Amino acid sequence: MSAADNSSAEASCDALAIDPTIRRDALARLRSIRGHVEGIVRMLEKEDVYCVDALKQIKAVQGGLAKTSDTILRGHLTHHVVTAHERGDVEPIVAELMDVLKYR
Amino acid sequence: MSAADNSSAEASCDALAIDPTIRRDALARLRSIRGHVEGIVRMLEKEDVYCVDALKQIKAVQGGLAKTSDTILRGHLTHHVVTAHERGDVEPIVAELMDVLKYR
Amino acid sequence: MSAADNSSAEASCDALAIDPTIRRDALARLRSIRGHVEGIVRMLEKEDVYCVDALKQIKAVQGGLAKTSDTILRGHLTHHVVTAHERGDVEPIVAELMDVLKYR
Amino acid sequence: MSAADNSSAEASCDALAIDPTIRRDALARLRSIRGHVEGIVRMLEKEDVYCVDALKQIKAVQGGLAKTSDTILRGHLTHHVVTAHERGDVEPIVAELMDVLKYR
Repeated sequence: MSAADNSSAEASCDALAIDPTIRRDALARLRSIRGHVEGIVRMLEKEDVYCVDALKQIKAVQGGLAKTSDTILRGHLTHHVVTAHERGDVEPIVAELMDVLKYR
Repeated sequence: MSAADNSSAEASCDALAIDPTIRRDALARLRSIRGHVEGIVRMLEKEDVYCVDALKQIKAVQGGLAKTSDTILRGHLTHHVVTAHERGDVEPIVAELMDVLKYR
Repeated sequence: MSAADNSSAEASCDALAIDPTIRRDALARLRSIRGHVEGIVRMLEKEDVYCVDALKQIKAVQGGLAKTSDTILRGHLTHHVVTAHERGDVEPIVAELMDVLKYR
Repeated sequence: MSAADNSSAEASCDALAIDPTIRRDALARLRSIRGHVEGIVRMLEKEDVYCVDALKQIKAVQGGLAKTSDTILRGHLTHHVVTAHERGDVEPIVAELMDVLKYR
């Protein structure tokens, strides 16, 4: 939290954008998840769908989201959190991260 | 587990379809979730997305899925599980339910 | 939900006690978990404990509790929930179960 | 977390011990959890315990463990993870943290 921390808000903002490789990986996962959710919508449009089949598909989507989330979280830790002390934004970065990890 | 349990496989199959009201509720929720996932895809298509913003949106979708899952589960318990002893399919219905509840 | 459902509250109460085999299994698991928690207390009594070592141990205890919970839940489904329609207590048994399964 | 941080591996080891205030808070929580688990053991020693009552108590303990875990995690992020880049142990500190957060 030294004076240097505030020297370049812009540079800091760039630094806090998601890593490009992780972004592309997360994007591919989410497009696949979107297709999976679309499949459950179609499944539920049929009157004779069985509850447990729907529950299984929802669970699979939750697994996919958890993996996507893990990918992004790992990138956030590696690229942004470990340098927070140098940037001087320890308190806000920890607070927002704890918010996201709660009830995870 | 009486002889009567096997008298009408077809009737039993009908009985195990999802309740219509619950199906429509789950369908509405999943269509909304589909839109939410679509929103995260568009968010991740931008290079300057911030990790924690993506994590928050994924968490919100997970919350929506959990509520949808709870709705279907409550219906499954109310309409199918509580009558399993009468139908004679206790073992399979409990086994498949425990599979879905695991790591929930 | 016929008249027969209310014929014997007492018998119903007996029927809803935990299955003896499951109770003994859960008891053995919980005694082991108690020892594990005691170990973490002793670990945290030392000043130089490392955060992640404590987090790992807590996670292991959570895994043990989840397995114990699954054991009891499977027994509850098998012995009490599948007969709820015959007993006539569908609504309360589903409501209390959903309460316990929420945020699981 | 001044220049002195890099002065010696030993100092670094000290730095990675849990924060004293957080340790005392976690210890108090875990002692209370230990008492709670002891209570569930005694509950399960009775033959007529009701499944859902045991499930509720286990869920309460899991909630207590989650809060304890959050306390320690917040301290770990604030005191150790945000300085990892300065110390030069980014990869191992992120890897072990992701291990602990998985399936959380």
